Amino acid sequence: MTTHLVTFDVVPEPVRVPSGSLLSEAAQLAGIEINQPCGGQGRCGRCVVKVEEGIIRRRSSLRLSQEDIAQGYALACQTVVESDVRVVVPPQERIERRLTTDLTVAEVTVPIGYENRLYQSIRRAYLSINPPSMDDQTDDLSRLTTALRQQVGFTSVQISLDMLRKLGPVLRDAEWEVTAVLDVHETLSGGGIEEWLIDLLPGKVYDDEPIWGIAVDIGTTTVTLWLVDLVTGQVKAQVSDYNAQIRRGEDVISRIVYASRNGGAEELRTLVLGTINHLLNLACKRVAGYTITPNDVVKATVTGNSTMVHLVLGIPAASIRLTPFVTSVNTVPLIRGREAGIKINPEGIVDCLPGVASYVGADISAGVFASGMDDSDRLILFMDVGTNGEIVLGSSEWLVTCACSAGPAFEGAGVVDGMRATKGAIEEVWINGETLEPSYRVIGGTPPRGICGSGLISVLAEMFMTGVIDKAGNLNTHLESPRVRLGEHGWEYVIAWSKQTEHKKDIVITHVDIDNLIRAKAAIYAGYTVLASSVGVPMQMIDQMLIGGSFGKYINIEKAVQIGLLPDMPWERFQFLGNTSVRGAYYALLDRNARERISDIASRMTYIELSADNSFYEAFISALFLPHTDLALFPTVAEATQKESTST
Amino acid sequence: MTTHLVTFDVVPEPVRVPSGSLLSEAAQLAGIEINQPCGGQGRCGRCVVKVEEGIIRRRSSLRLSQEDIAQGYALACQTVVESDVRVVVPPQERIERRLTTDLTVAEVTVPIGYENRLYQSIRRAYLSINPPSMDDQTDDLSRLTTALRQQVGFTSVQISLDMLRKLGPVLRDAEWEVTAVLDVHETLSGGGIEEWLIDLLPGKVYDDEPIWGIAVDIGTTTVTLWLVDLVTGQVKAQVSDYNAQIRRGEDVISRIVYASRNGGAEELRTLVLGTINHLLNLACKRVAGYTITPNDVVKATVTGNSTMVHLVLGIPAASIRLTPFVTSVNTVPLIRGREAGIKINPEGIVDCLPGVASYVGADISAGVFASGMDDSDRLILFMDVGTNGEIVLGSSEWLVTCACSAGPAFEGAGVVDGMRATKGAIEEVWINGETLEPSYRVIGGTPPRGICGSGLISVLAEMFMTGVIDKAGNLNTHLESPRVRLGEHGWEYVIAWSKQTEHKKDIVITHVDIDNLIRAKAAIYAGYTVLASSVGVPMQMIDQMLIGGSFGKYINIEKAVQIGLLPDMPWERFQFLGNTSVRGAYYALLDRNARERISDIASRMTYIELSADNSFYEAFISALFLPHTDLALFPTVAEATQKESTST
Repeated sequence: MTTHLVTFDVVPEPVRVPSGSLLSEAAQLAGIEINQPCGGQGRCGRCVVKVEEGIIRRRSSLRLSQEDIAQGYALACQTVVESDVRVVVPPQERIERRLTTDLTVAEVTVPIGYENRLYQSIRRAYLSINPPSMDDQTDDLSRLTTALRQQVGFTSVQISLDMLRKLGPVLRDAEWEVTAVLDVHETLSGGGIEEWLIDLLPGKVYDDEPIWGIAVDIGTTTVTLWLVDLVTGQVKAQVSDYNAQIRRGEDVISRIVYASRNGGAEELRTLVLGTINHLLNLACKRVAGYTITPNDVVKATVTGNSTMVHLVLGIPAASIRLTPFVTSVNTVPLIRGREAGIKINPEGIVDCLPGVASYVGADISAGVFASGMDDSDRLILFMDVGTNGEIVLGSSEWLVTCACSAGPAFEGAGVVDGMRATKGAIEEVWINGETLEPSYRVIGGTPPRGICGSGLISVLAEMFMTGVIDKAGNLNTHLESPRVRLGEHGWEYVIAWSKQTEHKKDIVITHVDIDNLIRAKAAIYAGYTVLASSVGVPMQMIDQMLIGGSFGKYINIEKAVQIGLLPDMPWERFQFLGNTSVRGAYYALLDRNARERISDIASRMTYIELSADNSFYEAFISALFLPHTDLALFPTVAEATQKESTST
Repeated sequence: MTTHLVTFDVVPEPVRVPSGSLLSEAAQLAGIEINQPCGGQGRCGRCVVKVEEGIIRRRSSLRLSQEDIAQGYALACQTVVESDVRVVVPPQERIERRLTTDLTVAEVTVPIGYENRLYQSIRRAYLSINPPSMDDQTDDLSRLTTALRQQVGFTSVQISLDMLRKLGPVLRDAEWEVTAVLDVHETLSGGGIEEWLIDLLPGKVYDDEPIWGIAVDIGTTTVTLWLVDLVTGQVKAQVSDYNAQIRRGEDVISRIVYASRNGGAEELRTLVLGTINHLLNLACKRVAGYTITPNDVVKATVTGNSTMVHLVLGIPAASIRLTPFVTSVNTVPLIRGREAGIKINPEGIVDCLPGVASYVGADISAGVFASGMDDSDRLILFMDVGTNGEIVLGSSEWLVTCACSAGPAFEGAGVVDGMRATKGAIEEVWINGETLEPSYRVIGGTPPRGICGSGLISVLAEMFMTGVIDKAGNLNTHLESPRVRLGEHGWEYVIAWSKQTEHKKDIVITHVDIDNLIRAKAAIYAGYTVLASSVGVPMQMIDQMLIGGSFGKYINIEKAVQIGLLPDMPWERFQFLGNTSVRGAYYALLDRNARERISDIASRMTYIELSADNSFYEAFISALFLPHTDLALFPTVAEATQKESTST
């Protein structure tokens, strides 16, 4: 028997193995622990190593790109040793990073060249005001407006009654030396500029001291808030939480129905404002080095779907739900914090980004901007997967959009053990094809508390690929595994036993959860395919597919394709952008030009009503399988399932 | 003994009387009841008759003008018959009218040429809006703004969040046919026009249907409100009441002090808003032929002294009271009813007229406009006698102004039996020089309840002329009259016995009341004389003296001169204008040009601070006598008192 020497960089001595052995076997012999969460089936990509010398044969390289292969990367569990080889074992964390980098949310970086003086609508102006005397009995307000005119050239300063009430005491306490904080923006008619006075701070505030703003994305399920220093542009805190409205309905339709009850609209408004204001407090506390109170926040840029924006403003949303499905307001005028009920500075600006239609809201206008597709030469399909799935197709030349109701499953809601993608959430799952035992990765590395959207996609794909469920999503009740059992909600698969979990309860996925997830992915798949075909664009023509949403931090494209959520196209065409809605709001918060471009995007998008289209329903029904009724649409999945069944 | 025949037109037979008889004696003989409230002393002018033929000798013609005399008018009690005469006795009401016409408030007439379409800021626009359909899913707001732009050319319509909340239901209930009510005005910077949406009424409202507005004058003591149909310009109701703040202090200083207490400002605001809103309700109920609710009122033009305007808006007034006596705000931006707390339509416009200085407020800007003095070639002294006395001197070329604190006595407040000039108020008093018995006229002809400002001037003058009080205002305690007595407040004069009064209590004027009245008139006299001398204008040069204020409906110039409130100048130079403040507000409410002129007036007036001037205090002390320390300043009064003492 021919043997070969396998030299690992992490141990002093090489090991000798028979020719044809797997690298994973050699590693085991050398005493190196290599992660194989998928049970050595070449699906998880976690056992990646780099072969620096020698001949190997790759049985499968499902998780590796051409470039990876060219550099010598190989999956230890799928790589056959055919000569002496020298192998580098990357540190586990580096593997994870390598595997996920291009699939995860890009870090938030301040836009290049951001200069608050040039782009920011919030301005600070130090004013040295002449105090009154018996020789000059001019009123306080005239003194202030004169100083604003003469010292900083502001001629149309709007001052609220509440501000007038504070004026006299503030000027006197500050001994007539104040820093005015104002928002400078175009007038409604667009013909000129006006300035809204927000605050008068005693004395001189230096230019580099922070000005606080927030970007808020109000999702049906999740509310996200970023606290930003508008001077540097840096995001200083990112927080999110479930929208407290959830307890009154999981999707926008049930919220609208609830709002139409007596007192319902006011209750929903109070609930979501409670969430926003809680997040605001939380974000303020999270910022190290500053003592910030919500009152220090002078500007909020708000986005969300049309229903959420209506409900948070107390505007009736009923017409959104009824034929012909129109909003009351797509473009909300600037309002003050006081009016909005958001507990930033009561004089602070609340800028609600513009929506397009009932089911394509400001979150999509913002998302399209954040994705950059409106400025691209390539044909891009952008989708925002939340409780609703909104899809935009186009480029710099044209944009069409539609929406479909996915439900909150991908946000971890409406699923027995679902949770948001925060600490304690299972974000990825591998199931050993033989033992059917799962392994998983938990955000924060703690014992798990539940499973988030990316974890759900992952477990659904794994169950499908390992035969725990069939292509219709039915649990295989004949398997000899304690993991598949009849629970209180019917048949379910146990992902984690109670003793492993933080809350000492089993974490499961039930057949109802599975149905919800399949319906959600089917709605989204039907949405983008019907949109594309409605404008005569074959899916293959799409140069790039940009995916926004809050599934979780790490999304596994392979698995998303396996369940038929994403189309089967080359992986490099996919890009996950995370929460594009809040990101767009962040850019708009920083930059007047970005804000203007978002308005342009909203007015440029052509909305296509899917409910008026029978083909949507047909496409939806066809997509209620894993990955799809028509397996020809998913060739790589077909190939993998074949391999899977061959190897088993 | 020579006798003469006296023929009265009102009885069939002439009467014969001895030569030298008084006409009043002849009338008595003929059985004609001629009013002689002053006891036949020739002071009240109520016994006026017209001698058409024959020779008479006038002992006194104090109440008659040269023109009256030329026409044959004579006081029956002062006219000696020296031949056969023929006499016409005018109906009593005609006498009253003749005596008071030019001395009383002119009736409110709509400005000539008023055309609401040309001058009114409130506009109504009927809009027929395309309903949404599956082919046109435009949002409600865009539909409305498009209709406003295309159908009536409004391009800068500002819509409040509350209005957005009503938008969808209103448009649908009205089946997309609405009449928009808007206020069209210049932008703050003056560069353009903006429209504020106030209301959306279902269907088409015809052009001649009323648009309701109010003019409100917030006096320290009295609040006056006029309800106006802005379409015709007609005043449909005039109501007034004491400012409920009175219970927290009688003058602006004590109010400001009270407001600086914890919660004081909010309490004062609530009190005055209570008064305004009560008057608003009252006025709405008073209009015959319409069912009006306060919510139907879409515009309020508000005036008042600076302290009142600050307090009603909740703006700290402390600086008004402290050196260097400055206001926080002279020119208040337009606000909405909701913000102001005035319970007109919450979206309605509240336009606070501009003030000049701490003690020359919007009431004076409005008053000067109402008086027309800013547009006059003649030198005019305008004064507004309220709790403060404000004085403006000038013409179309220049305007100077000052203020003095008079106290509320002339508004019937701070006086034991004082009341406003409403039904049941004694508005004029005559005291019989021999018996010291008073007679009086009561507003509405009912039993009296109290005495108003004009009644107080009247009784003060009568007491002085009949010797009930001396020139220092001390009651003559040696008189043999039950009317002069020691009451619970000290010495007092009884104007009406309890059995004659409505509330069955004596109506008196006490020595404290008298002191208050003398101090009030002294402050005003000192104010205008010092103002005139400060700009080098002798009182004689003043062509006209215009008097505004709420003393009462009929003010007796003669008596006002006798007490030294008004200067001793030819009566034809005086004109009483009534409440010029509310009248100015009314004009501003109707007419954008008037509104603009009031702003011009406010900016043109030069304020002179009397407190900085020792001469004011000296003038005040000198004026603490009836009519004045220096009797040479009041030659006609000197003459009358001499006659009085001669005839007694």
